[in-house]
Amino acid sequence: METLGYVAGILTTIAFVPQVIQIYKTKSAKDVSLAMFLLFTAGVVMWLVYGIKSNAFPVIAANAITLLLSLVILFFKFKYRKTV
Amino acid sequence: METLGYVAGILTTIAFVPQVIQIYKTKSAKDVSLAMFLLFTAGVVMWLVYGIKSNAFPVIAANAITLLLSLVILFFKFKYRKTV
Repeated sequence: METLGYVAGILTTIAFVPQVIQIYKTKSAKDVSLAMFLLFTAGVVMWLVYGIKSNAFPVIAANAITLLLSLVILFFKFKYRKTV
Repeated sequence: METLGYVAGILTTIAFVPQVIQIYKTKSAKDVSLAMFLLFTAGVVMWLVYGIKSNAFPVIAANAITLLLSLVILFFKFKYRKTV
């Protein structure tokens, strides 16, 4: 049961790695929604605070990594934005 | 405390709505990573099973909606793929 939660958390966390790699390689993030990653990053920050306040290590670990990855995606989104 | 978890869950769930809208409007999902959404969808399915087995209604609700949205994004990814 706990294992299921860990595997789920690992999957939804590492999912952002291929997105980071793809944007880095293509230098293009046009189709990636800025609003999505702003909302998502805000949510992940709140999950992190929730995890810290609840002393829930898996929640803290998963969301700390997800936060880092989504911040990289947001950074890329600005770095590779093109004036249309 | 519980409220914080709910707001976090709502944010990380509704985050996918602007991504769905953007792909629908632009008919382009080139920069959206297929691997990301395959991994993410697999993870969300596991969170959903975890929520059902734990009788955790907020986990079930958030992940059911996220699953639907990420399946729509995957569907769009195939529908609007272009042969490069």
